[in-house]
Amino acid sequence: MTKEPMYYFSHHMIPCCFLAFCAITVQAAEPLPSWNDGPAKQAIIDFVETVTDENSDDFVPADQRVATFDNDGTLWSEQPMYGQAAFVMDRVKALAPQHPEWQTTQPYSAVLQGDMAAVAAGGHRALLELVMATHAGMTTDEFEAIVTQWITTARHPKTGRLYTEMVYQPMLELLDYLRSNGFKTFIVSGGGVDFMRPWTQRVYGIPPEQVVGSSVKCRFEVRDGSPVVIRLPELNFIDDKEGKPVGIQQHIGQRPTMAFGNSDGDYEMLQWTTAGDGPRFGMLIHHTDADRESAYDRESSIGKLERGLDDARAKGWVLVDMKQDWSKIFPDLKKR
Amino acid sequence: MTKEPMYYFSHHMIPCCFLAFCAITVQAAEPLPSWNDGPAKQAIIDFVETVTDENSDDFVPADQRVATFDNDGTLWSEQPMYGQAAFVMDRVKALAPQHPEWQTTQPYSAVLQGDMAAVAAGGHRALLELVMATHAGMTTDEFEAIVTQWITTARHPKTGRLYTEMVYQPMLELLDYLRSNGFKTFIVSGGGVDFMRPWTQRVYGIPPEQVVGSSVKCRFEVRDGSPVVIRLPELNFIDDKEGKPVGIQQHIGQRPTMAFGNSDGDYEMLQWTTAGDGPRFGMLIHHTDADRESAYDRESSIGKLERGLDDARAKGWVLVDMKQDWSKIFPDLKKR
Repeated sequence: MTKEPMYYFSHHMIPCCFLAFCAITVQAAEPLPSWNDGPAKQAIIDFVETVTDENSDDFVPADQRVATFDNDGTLWSEQPMYGQAAFVMDRVKALAPQHPEWQTTQPYSAVLQGDMAAVAAGGHRALLELVMATHAGMTTDEFEAIVTQWITTARHPKTGRLYTEMVYQPMLELLDYLRSNGFKTFIVSGGGVDFMRPWTQRVYGIPPEQVVGSSVKCRFEVRDGSPVVIRLPELNFIDDKEGKPVGIQQHIGQRPTMAFGNSDGDYEMLQWTTAGDGPRFGMLIHHTDADRESAYDRESSIGKLERGLDDARAKGWVLVDMKQDWSKIFPDLKKR
Repeated sequence: MTKEPMYYFSHHMIPCCFLAFCAITVQAAEPLPSWNDGPAKQAIIDFVETVTDENSDDFVPADQRVATFDNDGTLWSEQPMYGQAAFVMDRVKALAPQHPEWQTTQPYSAVLQGDMAAVAAGGHRALLELVMATHAGMTTDEFEAIVTQWITTARHPKTGRLYTEMVYQPMLELLDYLRSNGFKTFIVSGGGVDFMRPWTQRVYGIPPEQVVGSSVKCRFEVRDGSPVVIRLPELNFIDDKEGKPVGIQQHIGQRPTMAFGNSDGDYEMLQWTTAGDGPRFGMLIHHTDADRESAYDRESSIGKLERGLDDARAKGWVLVDMKQDWSKIFPDLKKR
């Protein structure tokens, strides 16, 4: 929320006055500069221009402009493993000295031996079970501090970039473009909600309350006179596949106008979104660029895209061909 | 979210140009006009002016300005019964012809006999069980339509007003004042989240995603080719008492700066809020006005306020004396 001007003044009244402002309308930038001209970029712009046009039959009032984004593989890279998988593995390694039994117990021994494929193949559910095993009994404040420390230091195994530098520049531009057109932007991810919230405002401009994700149950208690919220080793909600429309309904409370994903884990979110009345928009990012990022779809254990590829045309969902449609994949690195 | 100007234009560039705008600064209104001058009003204004002052040590950045409000008894009247209790009773009566067994089964027979006290005494938990019994197997879209129809027609048994006209004028002004100062305003209520969301934007200016409440579990499915979300007869979450800090953490993802309640159901929310680092604000509405609304606290089955009264001073929470502090209780009725 932007800070609005203060219309209220206490204890004294401001007399009427007339002020003349001189404003410079700066040269307007083309939207979506890292998107190549083509059907995907055109579909986004046509849709946004239509639903924001008050004279259009398909006008959508601003308070109904809701856009939901998957995170892994849609806003940032998920190969060779989910960012959260790397986090969990690092946590297991950090805690291993206190748990000698982990050397001979699965899935901990696989993690300690660096068998990333075995961990990733278990998907979000296995990851969340590992999160629970390593974080039970911790307060929400403590967990946030651990995530913040990790996300500002851990580096991608292939590129050496921070994970937050593995976000997609075209999607950052898309988030900005939609918000400039009155959309509220939400993340709806199978990943852990408390793993994302400490950094989504800074990286994506998405505040914590607009992040929907998987979660563990929590309990409020007063410890030594201080109220705390404890993370419990019990699943609360899996925000993936058929869980995504449920998470959207429970958290956002209205059906999105636009939904963006990249895998079959996003199929139901797009299905739910685009089945609504009035104008709706569904888009799938197809990872086709082995040189600049990764190329994967039907055979991949991470980010498998099969039903979405088969049904996109019939359902009117737009496919993004990363290699063709994106002139740039990752943001330029800021000088450090 | 307000609609922002469109900075982007497709397919053509706007040349630099200079435009002169002439704006009239209208006479600024005093904030909180329905609040009488006194310690409660002053505490709100002092706090807001401090946390929005960039030169103050207690400055709070806009993205951390979160204010949470209980609903029943804090934003609208809860006497002689919760609005949601009236809704449930009306639903039971509407569905009774299809359920002849309800005539002799509790709690349905009490509802059908109009024994409001027996229903209300069960609190939010009993209400939610009745909601589940009467709404199982219904889609979220169907439930929203029923709530919308009810809330625009049902009237308060004592005043004959619509329930949405039983909101507190001073609190509407407070919501506006906080939003004008960059706060995001949230409802955090023991009531059902899907009972509130269809009307909170219109009545309070609070969008559905900023409403936190109790909920039932839901399931996504495809019925006759159409995706739907079904409300299940199973409790998901009770957002009351020690549930409120948990609901805040799960949904909002950060600790509020300000919290407003009226009963001991809000105790833990204020406790959690005001125990945070930096400037925090807790306020309890004390119902002291039998003539204009109701007077109740320690002995009430609805909105019982006992721990909050006992501990407010020690915890630095501000008590609002409705009779003393509010010059007006309910909004003027719009001409219909």
